Amino acid sequence: MFKEAVYHRPRGSYAYAYDEKTIHIRLRTKKADAKRVQLIFGDPYDFDSDRNWMAEKQDMEKIGNDELFDYWLIAVQPHHRRLRYGFELFGESDSIVLTEKGFYDSAPLDDVAYYFCFPFIHKNDLLKAPDWVKDTIWYQIFPERFANGDPSNDPEGTVPWNSEEPKVDNFFGGDFQGIIHHLDYLQQLGINGIYFNPFFIAPTNHKYDTKDYKEIDPQFGDKETLKKLVNECHNRGIKVMLDAVFNHSGYEFPPFQDVLKHGEQSKYKDWFHLHEFPLQTEPIPNYDTFAYEHTMPKLNTSHPEVKKYFLEVGTYWVKEFDIDGWRLDVANEVDHHFWKEFRHAVKSIKDDVYILGEIWHDSLPWLEGDQFDAVMNYPFTIGANDFFLKDKTSASQFKNTMQTVLNMYPQQVNEVSFNLLGSHDTPRILTIAGGNKEKVKQVLAFQLSFPGSPCIYYGDEIGMAGENDPGCRACMIWDENQQDQDMLNHVKKLISLRRSLPLMRNEGSFRILNTNPDDQSLIYTREDDDQKLICMMSNKDSESKVNLPAELGLAGKKVADIWTNEEISFEDDETEITLPAYGFKFLLLTK
Amino acid sequence: MFKEAVYHRPRGSYAYAYDEKTIHIRLRTKKADAKRVQLIFGDPYDFDSDRNWMAEKQDMEKIGNDELFDYWLIAVQPHHRRLRYGFELFGESDSIVLTEKGFYDSAPLDDVAYYFCFPFIHKNDLLKAPDWVKDTIWYQIFPERFANGDPSNDPEGTVPWNSEEPKVDNFFGGDFQGIIHHLDYLQQLGINGIYFNPFFIAPTNHKYDTKDYKEIDPQFGDKETLKKLVNECHNRGIKVMLDAVFNHSGYEFPPFQDVLKHGEQSKYKDWFHLHEFPLQTEPIPNYDTFAYEHTMPKLNTSHPEVKKYFLEVGTYWVKEFDIDGWRLDVANEVDHHFWKEFRHAVKSIKDDVYILGEIWHDSLPWLEGDQFDAVMNYPFTIGANDFFLKDKTSASQFKNTMQTVLNMYPQQVNEVSFNLLGSHDTPRILTIAGGNKEKVKQVLAFQLSFPGSPCIYYGDEIGMAGENDPGCRACMIWDENQQDQDMLNHVKKLISLRRSLPLMRNEGSFRILNTNPDDQSLIYTREDDDQKLICMMSNKDSESKVNLPAELGLAGKKVADIWTNEEISFEDDETEITLPAYGFKFLLLTK
Repeated sequence: MFKEAVYHRPRGSYAYAYDEKTIHIRLRTKKADAKRVQLIFGDPYDFDSDRNWMAEKQDMEKIGNDELFDYWLIAVQPHHRRLRYGFELFGESDSIVLTEKGFYDSAPLDDVAYYFCFPFIHKNDLLKAPDWVKDTIWYQIFPERFANGDPSNDPEGTVPWNSEEPKVDNFFGGDFQGIIHHLDYLQQLGINGIYFNPFFIAPTNHKYDTKDYKEIDPQFGDKETLKKLVNECHNRGIKVMLDAVFNHSGYEFPPFQDVLKHGEQSKYKDWFHLHEFPLQTEPIPNYDTFAYEHTMPKLNTSHPEVKKYFLEVGTYWVKEFDIDGWRLDVANEVDHHFWKEFRHAVKSIKDDVYILGEIWHDSLPWLEGDQFDAVMNYPFTIGANDFFLKDKTSASQFKNTMQTVLNMYPQQVNEVSFNLLGSHDTPRILTIAGGNKEKVKQVLAFQLSFPGSPCIYYGDEIGMAGENDPGCRACMIWDENQQDQDMLNHVKKLISLRRSLPLMRNEGSFRILNTNPDDQSLIYTREDDDQKLICMMSNKDSESKVNLPAELGLAGKKVADIWTNEEISFEDDETEITLPAYGFKFLLLTK
Repeated sequence: MFKEAVYHRPRGSYAYAYDEKTIHIRLRTKKADAKRVQLIFGDPYDFDSDRNWMAEKQDMEKIGNDELFDYWLIAVQPHHRRLRYGFELFGESDSIVLTEKGFYDSAPLDDVAYYFCFPFIHKNDLLKAPDWVKDTIWYQIFPERFANGDPSNDPEGTVPWNSEEPKVDNFFGGDFQGIIHHLDYLQQLGINGIYFNPFFIAPTNHKYDTKDYKEIDPQFGDKETLKKLVNECHNRGIKVMLDAVFNHSGYEFPPFQDVLKHGEQSKYKDWFHLHEFPLQTEPIPNYDTFAYEHTMPKLNTSHPEVKKYFLEVGTYWVKEFDIDGWRLDVANEVDHHFWKEFRHAVKSIKDDVYILGEIWHDSLPWLEGDQFDAVMNYPFTIGANDFFLKDKTSASQFKNTMQTVLNMYPQQVNEVSFNLLGSHDTPRILTIAGGNKEKVKQVLAFQLSFPGSPCIYYGDEIGMAGENDPGCRACMIWDENQQDQDMLNHVKKLISLRRSLPLMRNEGSFRILNTNPDDQSLIYTREDDDQKLICMMSNKDSESKVNLPAELGLAGKKVADIWTNEEISFEDDETEITLPAYGFKFLLLTK
């Protein structure tokens, strides 16, 4: 066996407490190398060199593979919440044992110190995400562009709704009242969570350049209207998540204005990362900013006053407005210490607030229980869009990407991962798909049958198109004749299916079957003790026949096509299914 | 190249901020596979798909190898404290590029998102260990057995000093006054830090079963005497570290006694992990304990009152007695949240307190800046003793172990790693060596020329022997005629050398040369810009000739043998050195 490819370290996604009793252990081996892997384990204090103290052995489950590796998982519930363990890896004819001290021909029994250790499951160290997120389907609203319900608060220069293209600096008058007017629409759509882009006072239409973190921009309404909006959402079972921009402030943020005015004498000079005085912006700012954007000075969140201020902001909106989640902008560039205190402060007010980081890269350092519940799952976004919408990758490459995504983080993170296909920062999915509606329908079918917490970007459900910012921020279309009703019904049906079938959400295990590398079709399953959902997708531009492999155990069985409500009976020797171009199927097998 | 063997994840020991400006990046490849590795890097916001934005490339240094892998390191100082990066790996004739998204034939330039990210260096997230620890040589004292300076505080049943073998339950009357009497001895020995086993009130002689965490056991003296002891140490430039047993209390700890007395009605019932009432101890305790020891009930350090109590204990001894370090017993079984608060509380009082965890296994989760500065380096202990004292491993196996040890943690952890050869929990080194003094001298020479913070267990320096507990806890011998003066001079000389030569401590890089697998000799270097120390050790029981390989660049050069104060001139074609049985050499080359 290829020892160099075997990876395990007792932390992160490889060893973690899943709940108060259960430890998940994962192992990585070279693809198609080990035939079987067993966990050898025991209590750290049952050690007795005179007997085979590590008597317990259990098979690990092979949960998938990507291009290079197989991944193995086991859930164990040790008697005393503490564990020493190693792995026995079986090849064709040989076996080796992996311990923390390296590889051995057989399990060393003279000292417990050889073995990996999970010292104790502590409840307060658990990554415990709010339960409701697992069952949430999000809808993202860019407040300036969703609906204008109160023309009296329109900012100066507001143009009529949808009267022109979205630009970086135009205003259409979207507001809270507009959202309230359309909550019935959202309820009928079936979503049960709204993620709002920022609405605190800021000069731009996107509001990511905050001037006042404790006040609502008057163009959206006042605090009473927000309270009403949150109440109306809660009455409909819809959760509310706000956007926190704590990495940097806007240029007009009074403390930064004070620094600009008083320079080194400003009492706010330590609120930012200033390198020298006077402040300059050319050739690049001589103070830290978001990217090189001089209007977005980076906040020094390790300064006690800044920390106090932003922890107050974080708790204020939860306490006063009963919001349910915080999406944290540019979360990776803020210090970990701040986020630890932020989690503690916010969860002390309301223990099931969802804390979601905007991080585009590997985010494990933020996902170990003391900072975020999840991150915006851009690796999912990129993987799904590259395969379904851009035809950039093959089915097997896509499978590999999704396996990598699922093996990056602990399972409880995957269960609340924010799975988006597009946002205010990307082109719209219909545009990425070159206008191909069937492709869009298919990727949505994938998104809504994947573990995690999916999010629909406003307007995608009615077939809106748009290039990247500002194109993707067009006004929501409310004229039903201009809405793509077929797409809307498709999304409604998918949402309804996901909400009615726990198996499709996070209750069912997720496995992708190996695909023929030449193929553009995909088969994956969602499974629990009673049922198995077989999902099939073809990314071909023509009809294709897909054979359901024997390992699915369908020969001679009946399944329900839950999309068409038909029943399919398989012959003993015939398990082929015909999929139309860009078609998909959801087949439910009751065990 | 073997892609499956390549490992990097942007965290832990693979990517960390070393100081406020510098990021260390490590990479692991299959042994002897990549010939050269370059880091490709750039600012995350300099991305421009029209030009080769990731223009910067720098060679990584191959810092060593173990049985399976080569390890590579580079220190980079990005302009804006933020970094995107990938790796180019060169084989004999080909090269591949590793990004966060996988391997590519050449560096992808169309999107910054391919690359690994180190988003920002935050000062408050740095693992910053106290500077003084790098230059400290510790001496461990088991207070009951070091010296009896005040017979008036001897506990009942105390037997005369060294009048019998140490037993699990006998007392010899060691105390603070005895230590004060012998501080001159310790100063002459050259050590500059003392690690004290516990001395809070407890019934046993080892005091790990604390009854009162805020009071000194009267058998050692009172608080005034402790103050005097700490002062006397500080006056001599000696730091003081105490032992904190916060995982479990002793049986006599009043809150546990209250639980035993009042059962479910006790107001302390949540201070422990009790599974049912009444408490029982057979067949195993029905409450969590240290191991299965019913007299050591596990503390619930997540309970607010318990946390408050132990944070007070942690700060009290720093505030009132000006101690310099806390060694944390069974640190791995206490919750991470507690340690995070502990670090914050203790360092708020005195920012250069050394926080040292007792963890025997892989300790990375505790060593990322928010919990411990270092752990007791038992992998070092086991590795060094297996090779030098037990002849259990070959030189190349030993080299592999040390490489693994050095590559487990960030460099700043290695610099303050508590490198012990023996303790109150192990047999004494002379006993492990089967009485072979030369072997003991050699392993001490290795320990004192290895990076980290070495610790001498009381009595080892005068050739005391002793099996594991209780044998290793004998009374310190003060009769000079019974002390091994030769060993004492050896240790003094080693300590003096290490203290006078920064290169031997943490200022010099550490590299072990590859050894012939059949050989029992070892060559390693400590190097800075000006000097190179070449250390040679032979673990053979007879004289051996060791050839200094060409890569050391010694041909035609003169070196100083800093142990014998001789000068050695190498001919152009002759760089062989003769080492006696279990001999060692320290050769200093001035560049």
